[in-house]
Formats: sequence, C-alpha cells, structure tokens
Amino acid sequence: MAVRLGILGLGTVGTGAVQLLQDTVGRHPLLDEIEIYRVGVRSLDKPRAVQFASGVVTTDLDAIVTDPEIDIVVEVIGGLEPARSLMLKAIQAGKHVVTANKAAIARFGDEIFTNANLARVYVMLEAAVGGGIPVIQPLKQSLSVNRIHTVTGIVNGTTNYILTRMTQEGSSFNDVLADAQRLGYAEADPTADVDGLDAADKIAILASLAFGGRIKLEDIYCEGIRSVSKTDIAYAEKLGFVIKLLAIAVQTPRRGVSTTLSVRVHPTLVPQTHPLASINNVNNAILVEGEPIGQVMFFGPGAGAGATASAVVSDILNIVAALKTEKLSTQEHQSKISLINPLLACRHQDYCQIVPNSELVTKFYTRFLTKDQPGVIGKLGTCFGNHRVSLESIVQTGFQAELAEIVVVTHDVKEGDFRQALREIETLAAVDSIPSLLRVL
Amino acid sequence: MAVRLGILGLGTVGTGAVQLLQDTVGRHPLLDEIEIYRVGVRSLDKPRAVQFASGVVTTDLDAIVTDPEIDIVVEVIGGLEPARSLMLKAIQAGKHVVTANKAAIARFGDEIFTNANLARVYVMLEAAVGGGIPVIQPLKQSLSVNRIHTVTGIVNGTTNYILTRMTQEGSSFNDVLADAQRLGYAEADPTADVDGLDAADKIAILASLAFGGRIKLEDIYCEGIRSVSKTDIAYAEKLGFVIKLLAIAVQTPRRGVSTTLSVRVHPTLVPQTHPLASINNVNNAILVEGEPIGQVMFFGPGAGAGATASAVVSDILNIVAALKTEKLSTQEHQSKISLINPLLACRHQDYCQIVPNSELVTKFYTRFLTKDQPGVIGKLGTCFGNHRVSLESIVQTGFQAELAEIVVVTHDVKEGDFRQALREIETLAAVDSIPSLLRVL
Repeated sequence: MAVRLGILGLGTVGTGAVQLLQDTVGRHPLLDEIEIYRVGVRSLDKPRAVQFASGVVTTDLDAIVTDPEIDIVVEVIGGLEPARSLMLKAIQAGKHVVTANKAAIARFGDEIFTNANLARVYVMLEAAVGGGIPVIQPLKQSLSVNRIHTVTGIVNGTTNYILTRMTQEGSSFNDVLADAQRLGYAEADPTADVDGLDAADKIAILASLAFGGRIKLEDIYCEGIRSVSKTDIAYAEKLGFVIKLLAIAVQTPRRGVSTTLSVRVHPTLVPQTHPLASINNVNNAILVEGEPIGQVMFFGPGAGAGATASAVVSDILNIVAALKTEKLSTQEHQSKISLINPLLACRHQDYCQIVPNSELVTKFYTRFLTKDQPGVIGKLGTCFGNHRVSLESIVQTGFQAELAEIVVVTHDVKEGDFRQALREIETLAAVDSIPSLLRVL
Repeated sequence: MAVRLGILGLGTVGTGAVQLLQDTVGRHPLLDEIEIYRVGVRSLDKPRAVQFASGVVTTDLDAIVTDPEIDIVVEVIGGLEPARSLMLKAIQAGKHVVTANKAAIARFGDEIFTNANLARVYVMLEAAVGGGIPVIQPLKQSLSVNRIHTVTGIVNGTTNYILTRMTQEGSSFNDVLADAQRLGYAEADPTADVDGLDAADKIAILASLAFGGRIKLEDIYCEGIRSVSKTDIAYAEKLGFVIKLLAIAVQTPRRGVSTTLSVRVHPTLVPQTHPLASINNVNNAILVEGEPIGQVMFFGPGAGAGATASAVVSDILNIVAALKTEKLSTQEHQSKISLINPLLACRHQDYCQIVPNSELVTKFYTRFLTKDQPGVIGKLGTCFGNHRVSLESIVQTGFQAELAEIVVVTHDVKEGDFRQALREIETLAAVDSIPSLLRVL
C-alpha cells in the first residue's frame, strides 16, 4: 500500500517536491510507493506549475493534518504560524512530519520534538539547513559516533553572495545589496539574511544535532555583515584572509561544567587556505570537526527549489523506508507497532549550556583611526598589554583624511579582556575612532 | 540485550574501531549497547594497543563467522582472501557484515551482495571509500531521490599528496614519490596507488551506488600519474588548471540504450575555480551532480586510523539501530522477522553498460615536440581538422634541445577521432614526439 502524503503549501519548495515525486523514473524505486494524497493551499484559483487529480488540492489545512488516511505531513508553508500549530496537530494525530522550516524548528523545536517523542513519530528537517546538502542526516547517523567539537558553517547564501562580490569587485555593502535585491538574490527586506538571523536559526539546529542538546536562540551571539567595509576586506586580503559570515558552534571546556558551547554568528576573517575560504557566491558549506574523524566538510547549493526539494523528498523517503520495514511486521502480526529508528529520531532533550561571549577565547582584527602623532602605536600596545591582550601584529596601514589608520591583529585572547582594553583605548586623546572590529578564525 | 560483534583483524583500522567502541562517553548512546564479543587475529602473541577480557581474542576466524552468538561481523583484515570467503560464510550464517575492504567489494561485490540479499542481511561499506567522509550512506539515502548524472572524486590520498607537492614545489614525480615513501604517505610498492588501481576500485563502488547497477572492474579505463611531468603541471597552471587524479563516473546517453556509463580514472586538468581544484594533500573529495540537486561535494581525510574507524563504527551503529527497531517486534511476538531497510541495503543487481573510451566526448590537452620549422602549427591544425577535432588553443610554448614545444587544447571531441588525428600527426616528418596527453575536465 502506498504511503500517503499531505503537503502543506505549494510555493517554490512545495512545487519542487511535487515535481520530483511526479517524475520518478531514474530515481529511487521506493518513490513509486508514495501517493500525494492531499495538498493544502491558500487559494484554489492561483495558477500552478503542477497538476493533481480532482479532490487532492484543498484549502482546509486543518483537515489534512488530522486526516486518518495520511501518514506523513510535509510542511512547506514556512513562517512561524500556522506552521507551528499545524505541525503540532499533525504530530498529535500520529503523523510523521517533514519540514523545511528552520525558523519554526529553531524557535519551537523543544515543543515539537517533545511532542514527537511522545507520539513516537519522526520529525525530519534536512531541508532546514544547507538546502540540498545532506548534513542533518550525516550528523544524526554517520558522524554521531564522533565526539564533535566544532561545527562551522557558511549557511546563508545571500550574505555569502554579497561578501563574495564585495571581495571580487571591491564594492561596498550597500551597492552590492541593492544589486543583489535587483537580481533576486536578496529580499526586499534583507534583515533576516544580512543581520545573521537566518544563520542563527541554522546553527541552532546544527548545534542541537551535533552536541545532542537543545539551543535557546536568545543565547546565540548574532552579528550581521552590514558593518563589513570594503576597506577591511582589502586589509584582510593583504593579511591572508577572506571575510565570511560564519555560524560557529564550538564545545568550550569550562571549569566544573562538563559540556558548554559557544554558539555565534559573525563576520570572520578566514585564512585563505582554510576549506571554507573558497566557498563563494550563494553556495553553502558546513565543516564538522570531531574525534576521531578530524575535519569533514559538506558543500553545495544552500537554496533553490530543486536542491531544497531534494532534501524534502529524501526525508520523505527515509520515513517511507522506515514505515515499509515496519508495515511488514504489522501486517504479519495484525497489530500496530511503532518502531522508531533511533538514528532518524532526534535524541536531544536537555538544553545546552552556552558560554557568555566575554569568556570566549578568539583572535581579533581591529582597525583604529588616530591622530597622526608619534607614540600612538606604543600607547595602543600598552593598553592591550594592561589587559593581558597579546598582539600578533600592529601596523600603520595608511591615512584617511589627516588621520592615521592602524590595524591590529591579536593572538587568542579572552573577549572580555579585549573589550576592556578597547574601553581604555577609547579614552586616549590620540584615538579618533574604532571603525572595525572583527573576529579571526 | 547487547548487539554482539565479531571483529576480523586488529590492524590499524580494527584497533581504531575498538578504541572508539571502548570509549563511548560523549558519542551516540546506542554505542553502549554493542559488545565486542570476539576478535580474530593471526597471532595471539603480538603486543596490542587495546585490551580485551580473556577469551575474546582468538585465532579461529572461521569460528567467529559462524558463531550463533554473533550478530555483526566486522571485516577489517583487508586483501582479497580470506576476507572474501569469511564475509560469504558470515552472510550465509545470517550475520550482517561491515567492511572497509574496497578491493574485495569492487571485485566480489556481485557475489557478496547477491548472497546478502538472499540471506536478508546488511553489508555496509562506508569505510571503503573516502575514509571517514560520509558519502556511501548519503548516496544510498539522501541523494537517491536525484537522477545522478556524474560522480567525480579525488579518492586516493597518496596520489593527491604527490600531485600537490609536485605542483607546489615544481618537483618531479620520482623525487616526490621517494620522499612520500620515506614519510609513510606512499607504500614501498606504490602500484595500487600511483597506477590508479585503488581509485578504480573506489569509483566502481561509488558508481554502483549512484547509478544503481554493478560495475565490472575490467570495464574501467585506468591511467595513473607516473607520466605526469612537472612541465605539464607548469603549463596547466599557466592555462588556469591544476592536474588531479580524478575518478569519474558519468552517465552518457547513447542512441538506443537507456543507461550507459563512462567510468574512468586518469590524471585530469581541472579548472582552478572548480571545487575539486583546491582539494590538496592527502585529502579526498567526492563531487556528486544530479537533478534536481545540482552539485554537492563531500570533503575530508581519505585515510587514517581515526577517520576510517569513524566510518566502520557508523556502519555498525546503523545496523544496531535497525536491529534494535527489529528486536522490539521480535520480542513482542516471539518470532524472528527480518526487516531489511531498503535505504541501508544495496539495491543494485544488474550490471551497468559501459561506454568504450573511443566514444567518450571530452577535452584534451596534449604536448608535442616538433622540428623548429615554419608551418608546423598549420600541419597539426590540418590533421586535427581532418578528423573533426576542433581546437581551443594551439600555442608554441618554447624550445627543448633544438625542438619546438607546442601545446594543444581541444574543445569537446570524440576520443576516437582525437586518437585518429594523433596517429596521422605521428607520421608527420616535422613531429619528433608527443610527450604528454591529458584529459581536461
């Protein structure tokens, strides 16, 4: 018997998934055992790129999530509500859920997974991070035998596109953003992308899988790319770096506490030889580091109808394979047994403890504008020294309108110490301003 | 009840897997439900880096593969025999098999998987390709909803290390090989690596998973890196390429035949902007292209005890998860049901049809040494034209001992046509020799 889908939403991703499911030749044969039973849309009158038998398309989404004929609910509406409520209702009705909704999972994952575990159903979310790149399933399965210590990702295509063009063309953020909006690579309201919020949702999800604990979004330090200047991109290049918006989750040993994480999103100077440095344009990549595996990286298109549809349908296929295995025994024994495969389910239940940024140890790049007078570099160096901030380099790079420009790169230092040094430096009469402050990978 | 392992072999990979399984804190909790029940070795007297309870280690490997207490046999002996026979015996005794043995799987996969399907057991081989990189399981699961058209891999760490050093240092193959042998990156007998045989085994396995059909090793065109010269590496760089040993499997539409493949291993000029161009040293990467996903790439350490152990244990974990799901129902119903998850099993049964190289369409790079006389370039151009070989560039690059050196890059041409043109060119009085012939990605 076919496994029956109720699909919520027929936008770009929903349409892509339907096209894939309606054209299965040359794909996995198990796809032929899937039936698109209901598709929920807002309006029946809108012209669609896909066709269905009469009665399949409906505007009654609530009826879909409670329909006893449906095995799997595919949530591709996006947004927080009604997506959250519909997923919860589907779970309570004993349906498995496939979703591409990073925002809802990052915010309501606790509620959703708690309910899913109680109902013994799967909630699958490969499409929520990295578009089509298989990264969620490898984290749950293959990589889970490792002790993961770091997950570092370029997980937002829009900002990576903007930074790539700024780097390649020497253009400013505002010019490239305007062009990206014109070309459809950035939305009219670019906030979620350029301020790092989308990347924060995604690293919350990746970290929860990699470290086996839930993450509160408000615990994630989040800084976007609006303040990245072409000046800093050019200096970074001279120093051997490219600037990337990284989403980072790293296990940070802390006295007396077993597992604490630092989870953050910020523009970062990445060494040009680092695997993430060459990930350009709208591509995404996720680098996972652990013991004993070392470094593995997953690279691919971070968005797009086809790539995201591939991820959505692969989740459906995984559930179908599990149900097919289950159905064998059910039929044989005339009883309903729910056999949840622990590698498809989400195992995290508790919250991770997050280290405050002040305790974070990292390298910094910072740029000062100062009066052009002797001894300024010495004064800066003394202030840093007063706060145990050890420097890798301090270079006067040029002049900007009568002011001297000085670029400082530190060794690994405690962010709290570094901030205190900056506060002291701001009081120096010779210092005009601190236009940039970036972290270094 | 714990799932019981019988491990065959306690070399580098076996020891790495045991270390991982004996130290499970911070890894997937399911690992605690695994018991190392027997370990088969050749000699009991050899000092070992790992300890076992008395009675676990034995030299009787045949007893392990038939022991009714054992659920999973882990074959990490390597080599063709007795690995093949032991795996077959284990399968016939109803045991699941995990292996890292690319050579045995590439040669005897037909026999092994046919028997496994009959016995309804899993044969898992994540460690056979790409060390710790999760690529086998994504091909079976997430990517299988796509129509894969190309798999391109840097799958041999030794040759990638040698080519990287030749490129970075301008050294010759023989010098770098000798140094790699001294450093332990190449074996005393480097044939399997440098002649591309190891890469051929691996692309046979990847292609069988990606295209759902078995591959005969003798159908794979295989050319190693012994003939790659520092001269060609330098010219390639000037033309915007790096030279990599690629293993390629590509679906080639052929009149009247539905699915035919070209499967080959050869040194290749890769454009410097291509994702595979920046994969250096002993690292591996596998690029998968399909519809609708586009390009995804998996990158990581291609070898090493830790990385390979991660892959072996992830396979064990996958089977344990499946068995745990199954055991629930078995206990409940007091009967043995074998529920094989179709996404863990191997679905291919038939052989793929392979296109002969003569029909292959690709770009070529070739270097000629000719007499230094007027009109030679014209004569070369005419010969290529006679055989429908269209050229992208033809450049006299310099002189070598009175002879002119001419480098030709073609457009996409049929390999058969190109070879015929070369045969005609070889008869020209002005042509001294054709020192290099390489394909271009």
